[in-house]
Amino acid sequence: MTDFRRVAIVGRTGSSHVVESLNIVVSALNTAGVELVYEERTAAMLSRSDGVPREAVGCGVDLVVVVGGDGSILGVARDVAHAGVPVLGVNRGGLGFLADIAPDQISEKVAQVMAGAYRVEERFLLEASVRRLPHAGRAVVEGDAVEVGVALNDVVVHAGSMSRMMDFQLFIDDEFIYEQRSDGLIISTPTGSTAYALSAGGPILHPRLDAVEIVPMFPHTLTSRPLVVNGDSTISVRIGDAAATPKVSCDSQVDFALGPTDEVRIVKHRSPLRLAFPIGHSFYESCRSKLDWATRLGGRR
Amino acid sequence: MTDFRRVAIVGRTGSSHVVESLNIVVSALNTAGVELVYEERTAAMLSRSDGVPREAVGCGVDLVVVVGGDGSILGVARDVAHAGVPVLGVNRGGLGFLADIAPDQISEKVAQVMAGAYRVEERFLLEASVRRLPHAGRAVVEGDAVEVGVALNDVVVHAGSMSRMMDFQLFIDDEFIYEQRSDGLIISTPTGSTAYALSAGGPILHPRLDAVEIVPMFPHTLTSRPLVVNGDSTISVRIGDAAATPKVSCDSQVDFALGPTDEVRIVKHRSPLRLAFPIGHSFYESCRSKLDWATRLGGRR
Amino acid sequence: MTDFRRVAIVGRTGSSHVVESLNIVVSALNTAGVELVYEERTAAMLSRSDGVPREAVGCGVDLVVVVGGDGSILGVARDVAHAGVPVLGVNRGGLGFLADIAPDQISEKVAQVMAGAYRVEERFLLEASVRRLPHAGRAVVEGDAVEVGVALNDVVVHAGSMSRMMDFQLFIDDEFIYEQRSDGLIISTPTGSTAYALSAGGPILHPRLDAVEIVPMFPHTLTSRPLVVNGDSTISVRIGDAAATPKVSCDSQVDFALGPTDEVRIVKHRSPLRLAFPIGHSFYESCRSKLDWATRLGGRR
Amino acid sequence: MTDFRRVAIVGRTGSSHVVESLNIVVSALNTAGVELVYEERTAAMLSRSDGVPREAVGCGVDLVVVVGGDGSILGVARDVAHAGVPVLGVNRGGLGFLADIAPDQISEKVAQVMAGAYRVEERFLLEASVRRLPHAGRAVVEGDAVEVGVALNDVVVHAGSMSRMMDFQLFIDDEFIYEQRSDGLIISTPTGSTAYALSAGGPILHPRLDAVEIVPMFPHTLTSRPLVVNGDSTISVRIGDAAATPKVSCDSQVDFALGPTDEVRIVKHRSPLRLAFPIGHSFYESCRSKLDWATRLGGRR
Repeated sequence: MTDFRRVAIVGRTGSSHVVESLNIVVSALNTAGVELVYEERTAAMLSRSDGVPREAVGCGVDLVVVVGGDGSILGVARDVAHAGVPVLGVNRGGLGFLADIAPDQISEKVAQVMAGAYRVEERFLLEASVRRLPHAGRAVVEGDAVEVGVALNDVVVHAGSMSRMMDFQLFIDDEFIYEQRSDGLIISTPTGSTAYALSAGGPILHPRLDAVEIVPMFPHTLTSRPLVVNGDSTISVRIGDAAATPKVSCDSQVDFALGPTDEVRIVKHRSPLRLAFPIGHSFYESCRSKLDWATRLGGRR
Repeated sequence: MTDFRRVAIVGRTGSSHVVESLNIVVSALNTAGVELVYEERTAAMLSRSDGVPREAVGCGVDLVVVVGGDGSILGVARDVAHAGVPVLGVNRGGLGFLADIAPDQISEKVAQVMAGAYRVEERFLLEASVRRLPHAGRAVVEGDAVEVGVALNDVVVHAGSMSRMMDFQLFIDDEFIYEQRSDGLIISTPTGSTAYALSAGGPILHPRLDAVEIVPMFPHTLTSRPLVVNGDSTISVRIGDAAATPKVSCDSQVDFALGPTDEVRIVKHRSPLRLAFPIGHSFYESCRSKLDWATRLGGRR
Repeated sequence: MTDFRRVAIVGRTGSSHVVESLNIVVSALNTAGVELVYEERTAAMLSRSDGVPREAVGCGVDLVVVVGGDGSILGVARDVAHAGVPVLGVNRGGLGFLADIAPDQISEKVAQVMAGAYRVEERFLLEASVRRLPHAGRAVVEGDAVEVGVALNDVVVHAGSMSRMMDFQLFIDDEFIYEQRSDGLIISTPTGSTAYALSAGGPILHPRLDAVEIVPMFPHTLTSRPLVVNGDSTISVRIGDAAATPKVSCDSQVDFALGPTDEVRIVKHRSPLRLAFPIGHSFYESCRSKLDWATRLGGRR
Repeated sequence: MTDFRRVAIVGRTGSSHVVESLNIVVSALNTAGVELVYEERTAAMLSRSDGVPREAVGCGVDLVVVVGGDGSILGVARDVAHAGVPVLGVNRGGLGFLADIAPDQISEKVAQVMAGAYRVEERFLLEASVRRLPHAGRAVVEGDAVEVGVALNDVVVHAGSMSRMMDFQLFIDDEFIYEQRSDGLIISTPTGSTAYALSAGGPILHPRLDAVEIVPMFPHTLTSRPLVVNGDSTISVRIGDAAATPKVSCDSQVDFALGPTDEVRIVKHRSPLRLAFPIGHSFYESCRSKLDWATRLGGRR
């Protein structure tokens, strides 16, 4: 009857509102007759002791329901993308771009999804690997990846401390693009184009566009502008400034420190996230609602 | 008892909503016992035949009440600034930056103003004069001002037709600043900084700042940026491109065509507009309301 | 030996520098032993009377060499794209994004191209058709295309006169996106993303990206931002403001007037332009050179 | 003969180029017959042991010559502004906005200044004081200033770590302006308007404008825009987010950590910096040279 037999549940911790929503989700899923799997901390929030570890939450289930917001989905995405299981987001407080079910719609929308009235969109993630290039006084095999992270929204290479700048070189598919002095660089997926990259002056990319945008952060040169390239590009940032303490940040949630002469390579991650939406979801509707496209300044001229 | 004995009324034409608001204004002013003067077309809208011409509406009165919106105030400002009489704005549809009384507050706020609970802010206007410089084949005395216009918001020097560009030189206090190729230049007062200049990427200037902003329109060079200079500066734009058919536009309401080698000089107009606001008006409150400063994208990160 | 047997030549009119460059091109092509075809006005510039009309210049030839600049290529592109013949650009004054051969390299680069050391890039064009929708008092069959234009860089729908605004609705693939009040909308190809769209705040799109960018011009709402969508999208702009005299502009070279309630539909044109470049051409090299990516503000912090 | 009898010299450390320039400066000053005072580390660079501490370098001298760049002047400005002694800047590598004497002009320009051909411009600094507001569990007298810093360019209140956001409230002259979620806020003088604030999208303020600009850093709301207010305003930023580890940064050189519920108050510093320039210096000439205002994209349309 339903596509889903086992469904995992993950909630954002630390909010009583989330517990409330979780209970409605559980009830709706029970009504649909599916078997439930609880993520560890989510189980604890519901006073259950049968939770499974976060990393295993995508294994052997047909759907993961995330209660929280777009930020919660980012975290889950990095853990379950490889499993290929779809993720359905329930929001707290307004709608999100990723978590599109509002608190007062949970019963109705979850039932609708269970009844098959849903659509799955594939969203690609980025994979950032840090390679330690050999330099004077360091014996390293060229190209060793010392850190690997994935991101659904964006990989940010930055100077570590705010209002500090760093020098770096940008390469795309191993072609030199430019040398820049700025606070850093945002490399964003279409999914992330409505988040941090937008604040930094980047364009909105339609979710189905196979493209990556590169947005400079407070560039020292006024001619540095957002650049949109093919989604299959290899984007490399080579740190050039020994004095800085640069970092890589995945979805503003996971950070790696960079050493001098390190190189960050960013490519499309092999497994996309499969995002589930109730039928009727529209990306542009989310834009109108969340970016307030309907509002006018009114009577200015 | 009241500072006002004779009050003039001007309404935006062509709207039945305005007629409705005009009637409430008239009633509130009658209650306050002031003598009323009607602008010609406004009188017609109220089926009266005792209107005075628009240009004379500021003469011999203590206040001009404008019913319409910020755009209506722009028009009246150019006509009454020289008379030094304060202008009070009643808005149609939401609040304005200049017309700050909402339709449902008219009785209350007009009574309040009549009772003396108001504040007057001086806002300077710009005066743009077109000077025809002599050039090959033209016998003109240098410096003749062939056109003069005033603007409360902005003077825009532009290429005439959209998506065409023009070459020009910018001078400030007779010092050469730059040569530019763009669609034009917006020279804005603080009052205009929340209007067209804002759409073009200019900053918001606090109304009491004695400054003028110069904002390039789609500049050919990415390094051209908004520039804020002292309010007493003389800003000159010298047209350099014989092929274009450039124009000067005052508040986007009055246009002058420019000839080749014409120069537009923009200075502070000698008479400021005296804007009346009911006590309690706040510029930042207008910003929060009209620019939607309270709205958040919500849950993006 | 060479891929080219007959080569057409088109030059920008009205410049003695162009005549100079044309002569070098002719000489280099003669050396390569190809047959030459002259565009009518170009023939006249070289005091020849055997010119063919501009529209026919792409017929029966293997290459069109354009001497002028990026602007000249835009014009030729609209005329020869349908013929599928590659276009090679020779620039006057610096390099262009499209015309990549500098004046002092003509002999060398043309010989190189004739010897086969060239690469052809396909660049798609946009096709804008104006459809006159029926409305009160007008008997029109819905959907009649009354005007059709093509553009290599951009289609601009604008208010007609500068510093005037218009109301319109944007649809993508027949889905309503937003209602906007602004000076207009730039719909740009990747090729055009380094031209007008860039001045208006749009991102740079890599030439091989199959995408179109939509950039609002001085939007009334600050939340309207550049949007990048799939290259196969149908973008419709429905004029909503009867008072304005809006226009459509193709590459800022060809204009159509719009009537009230007209709709402009923009789709990918069926025939792409085939642009020839000498081996060694790099898009990013053009960016570095023309956008001055190397320049730094120097010592700011 | 000269206005200067005792002149102090400060050089940026760690550069052999600076030593070279220092020697030329010393020689030019000796020729002018003035008495020299060496800052401690500068003395060491010249193998002298008669240096005075940095903080004392402005005491009892008539001029301070700084060799380095705009960054070096920022540091010296904070130390000598209170002494009221003028500062003359010698640049390394191109010209600066503050240090306007190029390496190859040192002898000529220093002699010129010694001969009286100079002009002094007053540039105000900002003073940022951190006040620890009382809150639950903390016994603090309201309004204690726990840290005080001064800045010639800008005071930046930020989230501490890059690509993290913070919530805060902005007040101007104790009026609430807005609540914002962003990476931080740049509060800049006209002097700093060509530095970090410019990278962040702020306008250029003419150096003689008595104004301060407030520029949001990657604001969560797209409607947050640069704001320019009177130079005598009191700007307060009240930290609202207990989870963040925000900081205040003066000229990106001196940092203070902020605690939860701290408030940063920014006012004009009581002592301005007195900047000396050789006659002929022009702010707009610096803009043309450093912002590359003369460069054009060339042939785009």
